[in-house]
Amino acid sequence: MKVGIVGVTGYTGLELLRILSNHPHVEVTYLSSKSFVGKSLKDVYPFELDETVLQDIEVERFEDCDVLFTALPAGVSYELVKDLKNTKVIDLGADFRFDDPSLYEKHYGKKLSNYETCERAYGLTELNREKIKNAKFVGNPGCYPTAVLLATAPLAKNDALGTSEIFVDAKSGVSGAGRKQDESYTFCELNENLKPYNLVDHRHVPEMEEKLEALFKKKINVVFAPHLIPMNRGILCTIYLKTSLSIEEIHRMYREFYQDEFFVHVLPIGTYPTTKWCLGTNHVFISLTKDERTDTLIVMSALDNLMKGASGQAVQNMNVMFCFEEQTALKFKAVYP
Amino acid sequence: MKVGIVGVTGYTGLELLRILSNHPHVEVTYLSSKSFVGKSLKDVYPFELDETVLQDIEVERFEDCDVLFTALPAGVSYELVKDLKNTKVIDLGADFRFDDPSLYEKHYGKKLSNYETCERAYGLTELNREKIKNAKFVGNPGCYPTAVLLATAPLAKNDALGTSEIFVDAKSGVSGAGRKQDESYTFCELNENLKPYNLVDHRHVPEMEEKLEALFKKKINVVFAPHLIPMNRGILCTIYLKTSLSIEEIHRMYREFYQDEFFVHVLPIGTYPTTKWCLGTNHVFISLTKDERTDTLIVMSALDNLMKGASGQAVQNMNVMFCFEEQTALKFKAVYP
Amino acid sequence: MKVGIVGVTGYTGLELLRILSNHPHVEVTYLSSKSFVGKSLKDVYPFELDETVLQDIEVERFEDCDVLFTALPAGVSYELVKDLKNTKVIDLGADFRFDDPSLYEKHYGKKLSNYETCERAYGLTELNREKIKNAKFVGNPGCYPTAVLLATAPLAKNDALGTSEIFVDAKSGVSGAGRKQDESYTFCELNENLKPYNLVDHRHVPEMEEKLEALFKKKINVVFAPHLIPMNRGILCTIYLKTSLSIEEIHRMYREFYQDEFFVHVLPIGTYPTTKWCLGTNHVFISLTKDERTDTLIVMSALDNLMKGASGQAVQNMNVMFCFEEQTALKFKAVYP
Amino acid sequence: MKVGIVGVTGYTGLELLRILSNHPHVEVTYLSSKSFVGKSLKDVYPFELDETVLQDIEVERFEDCDVLFTALPAGVSYELVKDLKNTKVIDLGADFRFDDPSLYEKHYGKKLSNYETCERAYGLTELNREKIKNAKFVGNPGCYPTAVLLATAPLAKNDALGTSEIFVDAKSGVSGAGRKQDESYTFCELNENLKPYNLVDHRHVPEMEEKLEALFKKKINVVFAPHLIPMNRGILCTIYLKTSLSIEEIHRMYREFYQDEFFVHVLPIGTYPTTKWCLGTNHVFISLTKDERTDTLIVMSALDNLMKGASGQAVQNMNVMFCFEEQTALKFKAVYP
Repeated sequence: MKVGIVGVTGYTGLELLRILSNHPHVEVTYLSSKSFVGKSLKDVYPFELDETVLQDIEVERFEDCDVLFTALPAGVSYELVKDLKNTKVIDLGADFRFDDPSLYEKHYGKKLSNYETCERAYGLTELNREKIKNAKFVGNPGCYPTAVLLATAPLAKNDALGTSEIFVDAKSGVSGAGRKQDESYTFCELNENLKPYNLVDHRHVPEMEEKLEALFKKKINVVFAPHLIPMNRGILCTIYLKTSLSIEEIHRMYREFYQDEFFVHVLPIGTYPTTKWCLGTNHVFISLTKDERTDTLIVMSALDNLMKGASGQAVQNMNVMFCFEEQTALKFKAVYP
Repeated sequence: MKVGIVGVTGYTGLELLRILSNHPHVEVTYLSSKSFVGKSLKDVYPFELDETVLQDIEVERFEDCDVLFTALPAGVSYELVKDLKNTKVIDLGADFRFDDPSLYEKHYGKKLSNYETCERAYGLTELNREKIKNAKFVGNPGCYPTAVLLATAPLAKNDALGTSEIFVDAKSGVSGAGRKQDESYTFCELNENLKPYNLVDHRHVPEMEEKLEALFKKKINVVFAPHLIPMNRGILCTIYLKTSLSIEEIHRMYREFYQDEFFVHVLPIGTYPTTKWCLGTNHVFISLTKDERTDTLIVMSALDNLMKGASGQAVQNMNVMFCFEEQTALKFKAVYP
Repeated sequence: MKVGIVGVTGYTGLELLRILSNHPHVEVTYLSSKSFVGKSLKDVYPFELDETVLQDIEVERFEDCDVLFTALPAGVSYELVKDLKNTKVIDLGADFRFDDPSLYEKHYGKKLSNYETCERAYGLTELNREKIKNAKFVGNPGCYPTAVLLATAPLAKNDALGTSEIFVDAKSGVSGAGRKQDESYTFCELNENLKPYNLVDHRHVPEMEEKLEALFKKKINVVFAPHLIPMNRGILCTIYLKTSLSIEEIHRMYREFYQDEFFVHVLPIGTYPTTKWCLGTNHVFISLTKDERTDTLIVMSALDNLMKGASGQAVQNMNVMFCFEEQTALKFKAVYP
Repeated sequence: MKVGIVGVTGYTGLELLRILSNHPHVEVTYLSSKSFVGKSLKDVYPFELDETVLQDIEVERFEDCDVLFTALPAGVSYELVKDLKNTKVIDLGADFRFDDPSLYEKHYGKKLSNYETCERAYGLTELNREKIKNAKFVGNPGCYPTAVLLATAPLAKNDALGTSEIFVDAKSGVSGAGRKQDESYTFCELNENLKPYNLVDHRHVPEMEEKLEALFKKKINVVFAPHLIPMNRGILCTIYLKTSLSIEEIHRMYREFYQDEFFVHVLPIGTYPTTKWCLGTNHVFISLTKDERTDTLIVMSALDNLMKGASGQAVQNMNVMFCFEEQTALKFKAVYP
C-alpha cells in the first residue's frame, strides 16, 4: 500500500516515519515538505538514513497514494485534499475534527468551503472505531482531547458524572507545540521552568466539549488549564469531577470499558501513571482516585503526545481503515529511562 | 545576634546559609549536622568556602543562640527545643505548624508532650505577622500551604468563595522532597518525566485546611493532587474554585490585599506566572483567570520552594521577630535564566 | 529459540526486553531478578504489560535456555555460567571482556577460577564478528570502549596514528551508571549540572588499551576523562589524536572501513553528531575534524549507551552467534525529539 | 556613581542588573534596549519589579554615566563609544578584547576605525588588574577564554608547559549563546541532547591564543572543541596538556598563584569541580589531575558563564576601575541545588 506524508519534517511527520518504517504492509512513496523541497531527509536530519528527496506539496501527486497523512497548518489541509477521489486522508491538524462547522469557523477563524457536506470521522479509535473504518477523511484528535476523552468516556454510562462540568489540569512536554522558531520556546526559557499558557481559551476546549456532549448526551463545560513541562514528550491530564459512585464501582466500569483495548490501561487503585511509562509508545495509562469527603473523582491519563496524541493514533486509524490488525507497527515498548 | 542552624547540610539548611551570609545583623555561630559531625561544611560541599566545623546536635549549645533554625524530621525538633529558655526557634518542619494537637498526632503519628500549652505561631508572615512578632516558637509553613494560602486568603473577605471546597493541582520541583537516598528520586527516574504522588492524602492537606478554616470561618475541603516536575526548584499551584464575583472585582480585592506586601505580586489579568521568575528569590507571583461560563476562578501562585516555601520565609519571620526590616537579606533578584 | 535474562530489572535488562519483544525468532522464557523474586515485571514496572513472574537466579534453569544474557555485578556472572554445557552466554558486565586475566584481576579485584582456559570473545561486533560467530561466551564491551574503539579502529591501517597516545574526553548520560541508590545520583544533584568523575583511572581504560593494542599492534595510552551529562541516555566521545594524513584521506579510510556496516555512519566533513540522533537506536555516528596547524584529528562518536553501548550490541551479537540477520530486531529509528 | 547598561534585555544585561541591585555605591540611571524602547523592564520581564522605561540607544545619553556596560553585537559597541570623553566603558562583546587589530578584523570581519590608537585593557581581572585599574575601555573576556586562561596561567612560570599546544574540550550551558530566535536552540532540539559545535574554528580561539602567547612568551596552539550541554548555565573546560612537573609541584604552583584571589579556588588533588558549585556566583573552581604514564596534566575549570564568564567579571572590573573593594556586590553563594 502506498503512503504519502505531507509536512514530513515536523515532529509528527518524523514520528510517522519512525512508526511506518516498521509496518509490514505499507510503503512510504511520497514525502513532501514545503521548507525543504529538493533536499533529502538525510540532509535535514542526518540521523535519518534514507535519501529520498523531499518533494513539493503537489495535489496531483496525492492521488498516487492510497492514504495520505497531512500535518499542515489549520485550513491548509482541508482545501488541498477535499476533492481527492481515491485517496484516503488522515489529517493531524484540526480541519476534520469538528462535526459542527460553526465551531471550526469560530475557533480557527476560517470558513471551509462545503465543510457541511464533507464526510469525516473523528479519529479517536477506541471511541469511534466503526465510523473510522469506513471513513474517507479522518480528523486525528488533538493531543489534549485524546487524553481527556479516554479518561472520561467510561463515565458516560450510568449517569456516573454528577455535574455538567469538569476541571482539566493539563501538563504537556514541549514537543506538543511542534517545531517553533520562537524566543519563548528556546531551551533557556523553558528549562528549569514550568509555564502555564492559554488558560480557559485553548482551541482544544471546543473540540473536547463537542465530543463530550456527544458521549454524555448533555453539554459538559471543560475548565481547562494547560502547562508546559520541561521535558520533550508526554502529556498528563489531571481531571477533577464529581460522582456519587464508589471508587470500586468506577474502577470496575473503567476496567470493563477498556477490557478489549490493547492500548488503554486502567491502573490498580492507588497507582498513578507517569509520562515516561509511555515514552515512544502508543499506550495510555489511566488512574482513578477519589476524595470521599467531597465526592470528587480525580482521573489521570498519561500518554506520549507524539504517539497516541498524534502519529501513533494516526497509524492506528490507518490500520482500522485498511483492515490491518489494529496494533500493526505500534507495539513499541517504552524507551526507559 | 547569634544564629544557630540545626540540620544545616540539607537543602533548606544550605539555603539558610546562603541568605544569612547577606544579613548585616546576624552571625551564624552554631552549625550542626547529625551526619557530618567533625567535618567542615567545605568537606561536605566543596563550593562552600567556610571551614566552620559541623557540630553534633547538643541542646546545651542551643541556649547560646538568640535564634535557632531547626530543619529536622517530624517529632525531633519539638522535643529538642520545647524547654529552651531564652532562645527563639523557627522550625522548618511540621512540629509547630498545627493549632490543634490532634491533627498533628493524626497525620504525623506522634503525640508531642505538652503540645497544648506550647505557645506557637504559624509562620506565614503576610497572614500572621502580629502573632509572629511576639512568638517564641514559629512553625514555618509547608511549601504547598504557603502557595495555597497566599493564593486564596484575599477571598476570605466578602464571602467571595462560593463553595466550601477548592481543587488544588500542585506542581513542585524535586528539591521539595529534600535530599533523598531513594531509587525513585534518582536522575534517571525523574528526568524527562512527570510524576504524581500522594494524591488526596498528602500531609499538607490538614495543614491547609486548618488554616483555611481560620481564615474563612468555615470548613474548606482541599482536594489536592501534587506532581513532581523535572526541575530542581519551584512550585506552581493551580487552584480551581467557585465565585460569583467578576474577575475585575476579584483582581481589585487581591491588589488591595497585597498592596503593602513586598514579596507578593498580583499579576495583570491575562499574565500567568512561571516558576523561574522566582528562582532563588523570596517573591510570590499570583495570577487570576475566570471561566465565566462556569463561575470558576483559576488562581495560580508561583514561588521558590526553598525560599518563600522554606528558608526565605524563615528568615522573613526572623526579621519580624527581631524587629529588623522585613526584607533584610531577602532582596534577591531571580537567577534568570 | 529460548532466551533467558538474568538481572532483568536493571536498565540494560529492561532494554533487552524492549528489543527482544520485536525479535521474530526468539522467545524470552526465563526472567530473573534477585531483588524482585516472585513479583511480576508489571508489579515492578507498571508500564511493562507482561505478567511473567520473576524468578530467582537458579543455575539449573540456565540450561533450559539457548542463550543467556547476564547483567550482574562484576565477578558474579563468571562463576554462575562458566560451567554451562549447551547454553551460550552474552555477559553485559566485565567478566568476559579481557583477554589477559591479570588485567581483570588488577582492575576488578577478583581472581576468576580457570579464566585462562575459558574461551571467550570480545563482543564488539564490527571489529570481531568472526570470533563472536563461534563463541560460547561473549563479553559485551563497556559503553565507553565501544565508542572509542569504533572511533579509532580505521586508523589502525596505514600507520595513520602518529603517536602512541590518545586523549578521550567522554560525556555520558546518567543511565550509564545503572540504577543507583546513591545520594550523588539523585535528580537534584545532577540536574542543571555537569560532573566529571573517575579521571584517568576509570575501569574502562585497561579494557580500551588492551583492545587498542591488539588493533594497532602497539601499546596505546588512553588519557581518559569521563563526565556525567544531565540527560538520561547517550554517549559522545571527543577524541584528540595526532596524524599526518589529510582530513580527506582519513575520511576516505573511515568511509571504506565502515562501508558495509549497517550501524556505523561516518558523517560528511563539517557535520558533527549529537547524542539524540541515536536515542533508542543501535546506530553510531562518527565525525572527523582536523586542526591542520597542529596535525590534530578530532574524532567524535555518538551512541546510545543502553543500545549500541549495551543491550543493542548484545542482541547484535546474539544475531551473529545464531546466524540470524544481524540487524534483526534492531532497526529502531531515533525517538526524536 | 551613575551606571548605564546598553542592551539590558539580553541575558548578560539582566545579570548585570541582578548584581548591581546589590551594589552600595552605584545607581543604574540609564537602561537601553533597541528592541523594547518605551516599555518598562517589567513589561518585558514581569519578574523584574522596577518600572524604569527602557530608552533608545543614544550616544548623547552615554556621557551622563560614569561607567557604561555595553552588551551589543560585534562592531556596534566600538563605534558608539570610542569617542566618549568622561565615561568609562566595559564592553561585554568582542570589540575591545584584542591587542592586535588584524586579529579582530580577520575573525570578526570588520575593520574598526582607529583601533590601533584606542587604549584598551583586557578585562580578565586576576591576570590584568593593574592595567584595568587605569583603563578607559575594558574588553570583558569571552566566557571560554576566561575559563581557559585562569586554568593555565599558573603554568607560565617555570616553563611548566612542555609543549606549545593544549587541547581544550569545552562544555557550556545554553545561555552562553545568548537569547536566540533560532530553531536549533529550541527546547526540544537541545533537551536530552549533547551537541558539539564550531570545532576548531570558534572565535574564542584567536582570543585565547593571543593572550596565551603574552603569558607564555611563545605561540600556543589551542585545539578547541566546544559542546552544548542541556543546562542553562555553567562552563566546564577540560584541558589536556603536557608537563614534566609532578602533580604536587603543579598543585603548589597553582595554590600560590591564586592564594590572594577571592574568586579562584584550586581544589585538593582528587576533587573535581561541577558547574553547579558556581551557579549564580562569581567563583571559579580549578582541579588538577595527572596521567603519570603520559606526563599529561588534565586541568579543569568550572564557572558560571553569565557571572565570572560575563557580567560578574564586568562588575569585578568596574570595582577595580573605581577603587571599590573588588568583591563588592559579588559575594553571592551558589544557588544549590
